[in-house]
Amino acid sequence: MAQEKNMTIIVTKGTLDWAYPPFILATTAAAMGVNVSMFFTFYGLQLLKKDLDLKITTLGNPGMAMPMAGTQMHMPNLIGALPGVDRAATTMMKNLIAKKGVASIDELREMAVEADVRMIACQMTLDLFEMKLDDMIDGVETGGAATWLDNALGADINLYM
Amino acid sequence: MAQEKNMTIIVTKGTLDWAYPPFILATTAAAMGVNVSMFFTFYGLQLLKKDLDLKITTLGNPGMAMPMAGTQMHMPNLIGALPGVDRAATTMMKNLIAKKGVASIDELREMAVEADVRMIACQMTLDLFEMKLDDMIDGVETGGAATWLDNALGADINLYM
Amino acid sequence: MAQEKNMTIIVTKGTLDWAYPPFILATTAAAMGVNVSMFFTFYGLQLLKKDLDLKITTLGNPGMAMPMAGTQMHMPNLIGALPGVDRAATTMMKNLIAKKGVASIDELREMAVEADVRMIACQMTLDLFEMKLDDMIDGVETGGAATWLDNALGADINLYM
Repeated sequence: MAQEKNMTIIVTKGTLDWAYPPFILATTAAAMGVNVSMFFTFYGLQLLKKDLDLKITTLGNPGMAMPMAGTQMHMPNLIGALPGVDRAATTMMKNLIAKKGVASIDELREMAVEADVRMIACQMTLDLFEMKLDDMIDGVETGGAATWLDNALGADINLYM
Repeated sequence: MAQEKNMTIIVTKGTLDWAYPPFILATTAAAMGVNVSMFFTFYGLQLLKKDLDLKITTLGNPGMAMPMAGTQMHMPNLIGALPGVDRAATTMMKNLIAKKGVASIDELREMAVEADVRMIACQMTLDLFEMKLDDMIDGVETGGAATWLDNALGADINLYM
Repeated sequence: MAQEKNMTIIVTKGTLDWAYPPFILATTAAAMGVNVSMFFTFYGLQLLKKDLDLKITTLGNPGMAMPMAGTQMHMPNLIGALPGVDRAATTMMKNLIAKKGVASIDELREMAVEADVRMIACQMTLDLFEMKLDDMIDGVETGGAATWLDNALGADINLYM
């Protein structure tokens, strides 16, 4: 019998773009029979909310380029700072994702839950930012750094995202 | 006898918020008997300075929300770009951390040093940014990517933060 | 005979500063005889382009300080948002890197290719951002999350950058 494989992911980011890597890797690994646990901490806790309201910003990321009119468009910082521009960039990104047939974060998260990916919310961050477990999706556990370490010491892959 | 466990952390960020994850995980792991070495490189070198002057910014992070008046407040980019707003956000975060009884970065770093966490400053970054080992806390070694790799190849957990 | 060592790196960032850590670690590891595969996804795909046009920004990173006139200079957000300031900061950083004798990203990437570091471009991101393999350097393969996982499950070190 092949030995069981385990993966842990520490999820620290809470924006629309950075929500993809943890959920894509978690669902892919689960589909390949790997036991996955995700530890959501700092801004990553946003990804566990029942009502997802994720945004992106072009500020602070000159590596971001959106396909537009057949070319790649970068956004100058001064434009990116204007009110409404983040909302527009978020809408553009969501439209692009839908047009390309990529799953939404809601859908990927649902797939992860159904694949028995373990979801752990960082208790310290919940307290610090006064967030409530009631606002999170069902099936979320709470834990601390020691909870993650217990899993990570025996895991084959550990990622900090 | 149980086998010794080892963890390495590459620390690349130098802001108040991102200073927490490496020091929290390092001190928790050390308390659980894990040998920890931290490799500070790029902006992460800021975290080794004797005089810590860490800041946060709301810019470029629409996932950041501060608890305020019973709700969660996000900061528009145009407001975040005004002079003094980063200073105000940094003060708010520090007050929040103190109010919640979370240790300061100075305290966590002190705990890490006392728990014999190995602190390695990246020589290339020291040279590049013209930073001096004299400005760093005592007990810091210097090393390069090969120093980290030597540790990482035999470690149970390796994180890039 | 010593057992072969393997490392995987997921590369997600596409700015001038964050381009260094993956290529420095990959070339150092390859020089030490480690088999390295790099998986370029999201903004990290920028690093595979034939014509590199990498930038940095001071926005959203109050941990960035440039050596100037014998001291360390931080950039206020409002200044950082002005047109041309990112270009100036990028030029300053490139000059600093050249002055200090640090290799350029083009040179490090060339070294990685020559050391047989495996370069994999994320197919989903290529599709999403309408980027073409023709615009990438020679020798780049395409793959998905499962390609990375296949490598990572048997590797000694896995980093998400």
